[in-house]
Amino acid sequence: KKIVLLPGDGIGPAVTEAAASVLQQVADIFSHTFTFQEKQIGGAAIDTFGEPLPADTLQACKEADAILLGAVGGPEWDRQPPHLRPEKGLLQLRKGLGLFANLRPVKTFPSLLSSSPLKQEIVAGSDLLIVRELTGGLYFGTPSERRDEGQTVVDTLHYERNEIERIVETGFQSAMLRNKRLASVDKANVLESSKLWREIVDEKRKDYPEVAVEHMLVDSTAMKLITNPTYFDVIVTENLFGDILSDEASVLTGSLGLLPSASLRADALGLYEPVHGSAPDIAGKDIANPLGAILSAVMLLRYSFGMEKEADAVEAAVNEVLQSGFGTQDMQVKPESIVGTEKMTSLVIEQLM
Amino acid sequence: KKIVLLPGDGIGPAVTEAAASVLQQVADIFSHTFTFQEKQIGGAAIDTFGEPLPADTLQACKEADAILLGAVGGPEWDRQPPHLRPEKGLLQLRKGLGLFANLRPVKTFPSLLSSSPLKQEIVAGSDLLIVRELTGGLYFGTPSERRDEGQTVVDTLHYERNEIERIVETGFQSAMLRNKRLASVDKANVLESSKLWREIVDEKRKDYPEVAVEHMLVDSTAMKLITNPTYFDVIVTENLFGDILSDEASVLTGSLGLLPSASLRADALGLYEPVHGSAPDIAGKDIANPLGAILSAVMLLRYSFGMEKEADAVEAAVNEVLQSGFGTQDMQVKPESIVGTEKMTSLVIEQLM
Ligand SMILES: CC(C)[C@H](C(=O)O)[C@@H](O)C(=O)O
Ligand SMILES: CC(C)[C@H](C(=O)O)[C@@H](O)C(=O)O
Repeated sequence: KKIVLLPGDGIGPAVTEAAASVLQQVADIFSHTFTFQEKQIGGAAIDTFGEPLPADTLQACKEADAILLGAVGGPEWDRQPPHLRPEKGLLQLRKGLGLFANLRPVKTFPSLLSSSPLKQEIVAGSDLLIVRELTGGLYFGTPSERRDEGQTVVDTLHYERNEIERIVETGFQSAMLRNKRLASVDKANVLESSKLWREIVDEKRKDYPEVAVEHMLVDSTAMKLITNPTYFDVIVTENLFGDILSDEASVLTGSLGLLPSASLRADALGLYEPVHGSAPDIAGKDIANPLGAILSAVMLLRYSFGMEKEADAVEAAVNEVLQSGFGTQDMQVKPESIVGTEKMTSLVIEQLM
Repeated sequence: KKIVLLPGDGIGPAVTEAAASVLQQVADIFSHTFTFQEKQIGGAAIDTFGEPLPADTLQACKEADAILLGAVGGPEWDRQPPHLRPEKGLLQLRKGLGLFANLRPVKTFPSLLSSSPLKQEIVAGSDLLIVRELTGGLYFGTPSERRDEGQTVVDTLHYERNEIERIVETGFQSAMLRNKRLASVDKANVLESSKLWREIVDEKRKDYPEVAVEHMLVDSTAMKLITNPTYFDVIVTENLFGDILSDEASVLTGSLGLLPSASLRADALGLYEPVHGSAPDIAGKDIANPLGAILSAVMLLRYSFGMEKEADAVEAAVNEVLQSGFGTQDMQVKPESIVGTEKMTSLVIEQLM
């Protein structure tokens, strides 16, 4: 199995290395052979190659079985022109590989409940999955331009019917693997694209009679995520709504540093990355939380390699370490239980063995 | 001064009546003459006239000095075709009157802190204002249509430079009247319209050197509103981002039933409405919270009539009533202090006298 590592910027390299060493341990224990190939993306790639997604990186990703990414971005590159921004590399990679389905699970870890901004009785037990469309909508629609010498500007929210169909199907399939409840989120009281989205959901629901489907508006969903996060099982939505709602959801449980994500397409190839950003202020200090990247590696094992028992083993190891009370500095644990990136990683690896 | 009342649907009529009686009391005490004219909008207008915004209603609003709206919408009209939806009446009214600036203040009321979903130490002291562009962007851009026999769908995020300029100016002016901090929210790492928006903010900031300006991305803002709501003073943003973020913000402080809003244009005309919806399930039971509508009337006195001392008087009366411990059933007050819509309204009026 070929894994491409894209460390990226800030704390990206440290957490990617952590996750790779856990994957190597999995390979050793379960007698698999994983090969790791490291490539540049984001600010690091801009500095070395003058572009955020070098052709060589894209090519390597196309030939891989799975991709593990750290994080991209940082203040150094904030004043670059748009095509030389680190984030552009990520957008090009998603589009270039056709990774249309972004899966972002959010759940509470009992030992971290106290770091949630929400009251314990509101957030306890939250366990939801946001399925976000990742290669369409306002992100890639054309025209996206200025007109009349900058007097007018337009962006285009564009979807093909089949793009909506496939992400809605991913939503239903995800619901079938979980608690069989699907909230389809749109703005159908305003957008034509949302009306088509709603129709397609209503067509597809016939194929999944066991799934309880609800249409929700994006503004009400933004409220309900806060007032009643346990209400949700699976949320499926278009690209920009998914961007906003998944970031909103990521801070509810106090476990941002532990949240993983997967970006998938119809075959097994996937891109896995922690939800936290590049956090340049804490880079290079051995204090970044590696668990988001390690749990992203769990998703990699599960979705790209179909290795359920290996995934379960890593997840169990992480839970053990958390239950022992250990945490990185971003987690609210006892001062004497705070460990750094490398120590946290070796704790997980020891649990695995 | 001519005030048009648009009671609308659900609890709309009850709370509009409450706010109108407070305004009448203000007129009596301060020797003003307010005339009230009631018109239909939303579902009520659909039922009577077959359309959500009858021409007669729009005309009366054009001739008014201010408009007080209750709420529109309800399940009865959810299956109507789009042009016969109650919400369409509201959208047409905003556009028809050119009400481009939506002001949504969100603040904590000490006596209501316990009803917030957030931990007290996170939310206490929050006091922010969202300035949302209301007549442009994806809401009104064309094309907004299906193509290729429904195989493709597009919506258009469209802005004229001057539409951005005027709302950004409203943002700066609002910041000058408050704590002089402005967060301009966009998605400039993806949208061309956001890049123009950012440029315009950077131009205008030269005219407001005292205002501390920050550009924030909509996804980070959705996070920060939850993790650190006291961080914000004024937020200015485009229509759809404002829709999502202002609804998100409205549930942070546990005071949804008390939140007012104003939709303004360059002259004094304004439309005022509580943020809570039509809540059809509690309509007709004399239990709806009238304070959102009453505080909307406060904004009306301030913005459309320039009556600062009258506005202050009503606001003070509301605060007195809250401090006495009274509340409607949606507020977490002692069971024996729960009062209905009419009682709450008369408590405010008594305080005024
Ligand atoms: C970096 C940015 C373009 C990206 C997005 O908006 O998709 C990020 O916010 C994300 O959610 O992965
Ligand atoms: C009813 C709907 C069209 C409206 C909007 O999206 O503007 C509402 O959500 C609001 O915020 O006033």
